[in-house]
Amino acid sequence: MKLVKFVRGGLCGQGIIEGDTIKRIGEWFNVPAHEAPFTLPELGFTQLAQLQHEEDIALTDIELVAPVSPFRKIICVGMNYRDHTSEIKVEVSQYPVLFTRPLDSLVGAGQPLIAPAISETYDFEGEIAVIIGKRGRNIAPEDAMEHIFGYSCFMDGSVREYQRHSLTAGKNFLRSGSMGPSIVTADEIGSHNLSLRTELNGVLVQSAHASDMIFSIPDAIAYCSLWTELQPGDVIATGTPGGVGSRRTPPLWMKAGDEIEVIVDPVGTLRNPVASEPR
Amino acid sequence: MKLVKFVRGGLCGQGIIEGDTIKRIGEWFNVPAHEAPFTLPELGFTQLAQLQHEEDIALTDIELVAPVSPFRKIICVGMNYRDHTSEIKVEVSQYPVLFTRPLDSLVGAGQPLIAPAISETYDFEGEIAVIIGKRGRNIAPEDAMEHIFGYSCFMDGSVREYQRHSLTAGKNFLRSGSMGPSIVTADEIGSHNLSLRTELNGVLVQSAHASDMIFSIPDAIAYCSLWTELQPGDVIATGTPGGVGSRRTPPLWMKAGDEIEVIVDPVGTLRNPVASEPR
Repeated sequence: MKLVKFVRGGLCGQGIIEGDTIKRIGEWFNVPAHEAPFTLPELGFTQLAQLQHEEDIALTDIELVAPVSPFRKIICVGMNYRDHTSEIKVEVSQYPVLFTRPLDSLVGAGQPLIAPAISETYDFEGEIAVIIGKRGRNIAPEDAMEHIFGYSCFMDGSVREYQRHSLTAGKNFLRSGSMGPSIVTADEIGSHNLSLRTELNGVLVQSAHASDMIFSIPDAIAYCSLWTELQPGDVIATGTPGGVGSRRTPPLWMKAGDEIEVIVDPVGTLRNPVASEPR
Repeated sequence: MKLVKFVRGGLCGQGIIEGDTIKRIGEWFNVPAHEAPFTLPELGFTQLAQLQHEEDIALTDIELVAPVSPFRKIICVGMNYRDHTSEIKVEVSQYPVLFTRPLDSLVGAGQPLIAPAISETYDFEGEIAVIIGKRGRNIAPEDAMEHIFGYSCFMDGSVREYQRHSLTAGKNFLRSGSMGPSIVTADEIGSHNLSLRTELNGVLVQSAHASDMIFSIPDAIAYCSLWTELQPGDVIATGTPGGVGSRRTPPLWMKAGDEIEVIVDPVGTLRNPVASEPR
């Protein structure tokens, strides 16, 4: 199943994609998307398949938003591919290096990313996102796969000049990242070795497989559960491979008018235009 | 005014303290405290003073929780006092060094903090918290005071062993920090030079004034507004002064049975017992 969170006419809803249609589930919420619940990952696959839906909505009639609840965490793993640690010239860490993103720093598929007016150093980072489906604390790595609800594509847009001040400043710019288009449930993925590609204006800039990660998805889940209680709907973005724009000569920054795509096979394609900051 | 968020019998409410009583305002929310709204900082002082209240509740009949909405950010400034940058042997940064905390990492006044089972390196950091009252992006430092709604006490509990892995891991342990007891509105504080003291089991361990900060409160607000749109109810914890336990010989860690107090004059006293992790 492909689960989505979306807005239409100022209201926010959630549902399941079937073909070109969304089967809308539950109520509409009359709040901004980043304050609206997204509860589908709290349900089991069987229950999801049996849900009554309220109406069919054409995908063309809505705007997708990042499929995360404001009550859940968006945890990001840094420096998790060797070609990226090489290009940024850091040692491979013994532990996952983590940071978090707030929901208002993420848009959904198709929504414009905002290139900050304050700095031109706006860089792309394509990533595979894992969504938790089962609550857990102190999860053993060998049990971690049971805690996965699904997968999504993630663009961890980073303002490098501010990232030198702190990860929080550089990684939390308003509408600087994206996630989606949907969450694809784990039963559709199985043990597939997910592949990841990033394309800027149609040109391949990053390419990797999940098996290239330094800290595997089960390792990352287990580590996070040491300090927090993971909840259904929590997101772990698993890091970006080599090829980022800041390490190119000359640097390749994202700017208004660009289109950035993160393709996770067989999860989907997350495509966003880049816009300039509203004045 | 002193604004509080609290729980009673599994329900979460908000209100204004008057003497030994809470004037409860608005509805009860039947969700965990870290998923319940806290909307009072979205109102102006005049509107707050005129609100109808639902009932009077004795302070002894409720449990205070951290006075923050799950829709708002908890931004923390690191290394913001010279005696602390000296003791941890880092250069004073040219920019504020930021990290964030999730709401489930914070308890309210009186609620037990949890000393992690996984590491004994659980340290105290007393801080002054500023609460935003007016939305803003790209706020000039000279306009920043207008964006302040109020102040609170903050205990940025830190697991030093995990903080060496990442700020997120070390600073986001479940129920490892606290905030409260209330938010005191800025009109009651005026231009007072807030003083800060931390006491562990009744012994003074940290002492400073707001005027000792490297990045002043207006500077911190202005800087945060460069990368995010600050919202009413957002919290900025302004950093801890020297005296932390990890830099003492021998180190002074918090453990089950301890009592930690953060006293911000004239804001109030945030007092928490420390408990061991439930098994």
